[in-house]
Amino acid sequence: MTETALNKVTFIGLGKMGTPIALNILKAGFDLTVYNRTPGKMDVLADRGANIAASPKESAAGSDFVMTCLMDDQSVLDNTSGEDGLLAGLKPGGVHIGTATVSPSCAAKLDRLHNSHGSHYISAPIFGRPDAAEAGTLLTYVAGNAEVIARCEHLFAAYTQTHIYMGEDVKVVNSIKLAMNFVLVSLIEIFSEVYTFSEKSGMDAEFIEKLIHTVLAHPVLGEYTTRLRTGDFEPAAFALQAGFKDVSLMLQAASEVQAPLLVASTIRDKLVTALACGMENKDWSAIHEVTRMEAGL
Amino acid sequence: MTETALNKVTFIGLGKMGTPIALNILKAGFDLTVYNRTPGKMDVLADRGANIAASPKESAAGSDFVMTCLMDDQSVLDNTSGEDGLLAGLKPGGVHIGTATVSPSCAAKLDRLHNSHGSHYISAPIFGRPDAAEAGTLLTYVAGNAEVIARCEHLFAAYTQTHIYMGEDVKVVNSIKLAMNFVLVSLIEIFSEVYTFSEKSGMDAEFIEKLIHTVLAHPVLGEYTTRLRTGDFEPAAFALQAGFKDVSLMLQAASEVQAPLLVASTIRDKLVTALACGMENKDWSAIHEVTRMEAGL
Amino acid sequence: MTETALNKVTFIGLGKMGTPIALNILKAGFDLTVYNRTPGKMDVLADRGANIAASPKESAAGSDFVMTCLMDDQSVLDNTSGEDGLLAGLKPGGVHIGTATVSPSCAAKLDRLHNSHGSHYISAPIFGRPDAAEAGTLLTYVAGNAEVIARCEHLFAAYTQTHIYMGEDVKVVNSIKLAMNFVLVSLIEIFSEVYTFSEKSGMDAEFIEKLIHTVLAHPVLGEYTTRLRTGDFEPAAFALQAGFKDVSLMLQAASEVQAPLLVASTIRDKLVTALACGMENKDWSAIHEVTRMEAGL
Amino acid sequence: MTETALNKVTFIGLGKMGTPIALNILKAGFDLTVYNRTPGKMDVLADRGANIAASPKESAAGSDFVMTCLMDDQSVLDNTSGEDGLLAGLKPGGVHIGTATVSPSCAAKLDRLHNSHGSHYISAPIFGRPDAAEAGTLLTYVAGNAEVIARCEHLFAAYTQTHIYMGEDVKVVNSIKLAMNFVLVSLIEIFSEVYTFSEKSGMDAEFIEKLIHTVLAHPVLGEYTTRLRTGDFEPAAFALQAGFKDVSLMLQAASEVQAPLLVASTIRDKLVTALACGMENKDWSAIHEVTRMEAGL
Repeated sequence: MTETALNKVTFIGLGKMGTPIALNILKAGFDLTVYNRTPGKMDVLADRGANIAASPKESAAGSDFVMTCLMDDQSVLDNTSGEDGLLAGLKPGGVHIGTATVSPSCAAKLDRLHNSHGSHYISAPIFGRPDAAEAGTLLTYVAGNAEVIARCEHLFAAYTQTHIYMGEDVKVVNSIKLAMNFVLVSLIEIFSEVYTFSEKSGMDAEFIEKLIHTVLAHPVLGEYTTRLRTGDFEPAAFALQAGFKDVSLMLQAASEVQAPLLVASTIRDKLVTALACGMENKDWSAIHEVTRMEAGL
Repeated sequence: MTETALNKVTFIGLGKMGTPIALNILKAGFDLTVYNRTPGKMDVLADRGANIAASPKESAAGSDFVMTCLMDDQSVLDNTSGEDGLLAGLKPGGVHIGTATVSPSCAAKLDRLHNSHGSHYISAPIFGRPDAAEAGTLLTYVAGNAEVIARCEHLFAAYTQTHIYMGEDVKVVNSIKLAMNFVLVSLIEIFSEVYTFSEKSGMDAEFIEKLIHTVLAHPVLGEYTTRLRTGDFEPAAFALQAGFKDVSLMLQAASEVQAPLLVASTIRDKLVTALACGMENKDWSAIHEVTRMEAGL
Repeated sequence: MTETALNKVTFIGLGKMGTPIALNILKAGFDLTVYNRTPGKMDVLADRGANIAASPKESAAGSDFVMTCLMDDQSVLDNTSGEDGLLAGLKPGGVHIGTATVSPSCAAKLDRLHNSHGSHYISAPIFGRPDAAEAGTLLTYVAGNAEVIARCEHLFAAYTQTHIYMGEDVKVVNSIKLAMNFVLVSLIEIFSEVYTFSEKSGMDAEFIEKLIHTVLAHPVLGEYTTRLRTGDFEPAAFALQAGFKDVSLMLQAASEVQAPLLVASTIRDKLVTALACGMENKDWSAIHEVTRMEAGL
Repeated sequence: MTETALNKVTFIGLGKMGTPIALNILKAGFDLTVYNRTPGKMDVLADRGANIAASPKESAAGSDFVMTCLMDDQSVLDNTSGEDGLLAGLKPGGVHIGTATVSPSCAAKLDRLHNSHGSHYISAPIFGRPDAAEAGTLLTYVAGNAEVIARCEHLFAAYTQTHIYMGEDVKVVNSIKLAMNFVLVSLIEIFSEVYTFSEKSGMDAEFIEKLIHTVLAHPVLGEYTTRLRTGDFEPAAFALQAGFKDVSLMLQAASEVQAPLLVASTIRDKLVTALACGMENKDWSAIHEVTRMEAGL
């Protein structure tokens, strides 16, 4: 670490992700104080020179940056507010960096709390898993006051490979994190349904795995994301009416081998709505118009 | 085309896919007869030297191969059976190549019909869209009697780039086709939900499009398809309990911007089941165990 | 039975429902011929004086009325058409009475087949279970040519307590039967979700059973069916916004006891759409406007 | 009101329900103080002799009972805790009666807060709508310390027709309230789906309304609730295999008239699971076994 006036860091929350991050911050030469509800988890940091605090308030006293790496909205709020909360200890102008995935409305609330206190809240949810945290190869999207974020650069560098500035709005990066996790778990669900259908149909699982990756890497997906983004569903590459037929056949084939396909059922319902709205000759990606209609757009 | 005794081909169904395929077969030098319910669509083939027939039966008379490229189960069965059906005209030992996506049970029925007749049914659903059909770059998975398929090689070469042999069972390739289309439409649905959430949250659509492609290309997906295939959900890379929290937050954030997320709701229900079955510390991809349980596995 | 020229009846399908119905017809003095795929099941009828036939065709020969009581669309069509089908044996002017729940489109197809043959198809799905069939207390809705139905009165009287004429359209009574069964199974699903939530919450099941019946008998349900029928959602008795809150709380409470509530999730999504469409101050039964919108109305 | 030492009542939350309840309490002779965030809504009570307070804390000072009739968890907690909350004003031994539908976990939290304070929390969610509140014919289920509840009897009598004691656990009555509202909204959803299917099928809505009420009043529902409660699914009155067929036909019929039936799709998936688990010959109400399995039971 280059010499800097801002080198006092507090780290709250020493779980699977927090511990390796805190260790990297220590390694980078910061003056680190840690707090964890279960005290035993602080030992590994103390052994390497970190200070130990008895409460969030105490841990924040005198620090330039307080980082939280906690489970959920409630635990972040509990560690921030109240008699023993970090706000009670944080100096004016201090910076709270939230690394956990919290709800957008929780991020907004933290922002308000710090504004009242004369301190700053920066949303910085991390992307990556424990091995990336250890290796220091995490990605983080950060949002909040640009000037304040500029002061955090050397700290971000200590525990991430890349940080990307996303603007002033502290809510939006949490929405992005949630959306990416939603895409991931939805992919898992689809894989799960396809594997189960395949297993019950007597297909070879390794062959199916290859097929899935073929689809995921197929250039047609780029065409679909563009169609959806631009709302361009005509002319059809694959007509919605034919798509409805195929999804119906899939559900029929799956019921014959007695495999329920929950996502397929959901999509079938949506395709029925699309047909009811006269979209039979549009591209089947026009189900996006139904999604938008159902969101009042 | 190399000289061969088997060069008489019938083609039934001149739609968006059928017409370019038939043209490529003609171009490859086969002696082609076509039939289409709406006669006007046969003109473009007749102009290039194809024979025209007045019924499926008439079209099949004397042919080595009869290809069907029709809309659905019912239309294939209607063109195959009955007084005017292709079976009534097809010679013993003749081969029926079905290129449409039909249900596995329809493929099995066609197979039985041809067996009784002394002819052969080959399942050969095509992958690709009209532009690939024109360019002759379609992919086809084929299933049925291996010897018979060997006799079709030069014909497959006329309208596809690649054909992959999948074994004797004529049902399975239809299941594969349906499964691949199911993956595609499910991806579209997920994209649609993410875009809609983003739009209502005030995010930039081009940024979201990039994020989606980042996820689709991420190596972690390979890890997930392997976990699901091998049933290996411990140790967790991302604990199911934490996954439940994130999906719940996503649904909460989406309801705050008033966007319904149907797939997320479905997955949330499944995660509740996984928690109820004691999987909170497994990887979140362990929802696959719920899918399998719900399929009686 | 009063003396009548029309007393020759054929009965096809001697299952759990068919056998007691056929016995009642026999008891009423009709000249009965039966056919069943599994011949052994005809013995009990033969013992009481029924004639036995070797095929649907043979069974229908000379009969005034042919009744079918079969499993599904396919079995009714198989017993009707083809070389050995009942149509091949039925005299012009003969009447086919279909008692099973078939699809509306199957009913329409049977109607067309009989029209071509110069005979008549009457849709007469039965309501009631084996004990009601034995007791002759079934209910049937009937549809088809009114004059033909008038000729069947004495036959309906032999196996039902009530028959209600529903007009000429043979499809509609099948839709009604399906709709009533749908209401029934949906109620079962709701009961199932409530019981499961209650069981996991440690409530007394008998108390819950009483509550369910209290709701089912509550006059407010009449108010809701009227609101939906007339589209009258203002002023709100219970505002949609508050309903959304309660359904969300229910899902949260259920996830805390780890019970997935699939119908509640579906309704929550629909309420989000209603909110997105600006219905927050309408009565919560205004979700009907979403249902209608999703059906293109 | 009979003479009693405990006649000082505070009422917080003067909405559509709260105002008529507070008026009835005043009418019954209690010494009433009210607080509402929007002060104007207190005028009608003040005109009739109620005292007005400037905060929850002030309103609770000196009162025997503090009633809250607020929108949701957050508003109840906000009015209870904090510097200006009712707890800050409530005397030891005072009683807080919560009449709103809050989450079971919120009720538990309120109970803990009062225990720490030396006061009491009573869960008393109300059943009924504004007209019943005016008429004083509300129903309330109450839970909490029995002795404390005995002291509230004359107060319950002032604004309800019936109050039913449900034991010590303050959570359970909130679960009951949520469950009853869930049954109601689920019935509305089913009615909505049936009406929409009927409308698109060209049926008469008044006829359908009668059918719905016929089903709701049918004795078979009692048989089903008993089967579910006792887990008695054999012998089948209506076999699950046949039920699956009918739900599939319903979905097919509905897709032909282009009406999506979301609940039917959900049930179809569950029936597939039941078939996969070998329940084809059980009564179709055996889907309850799937619901229980999905809840880890």
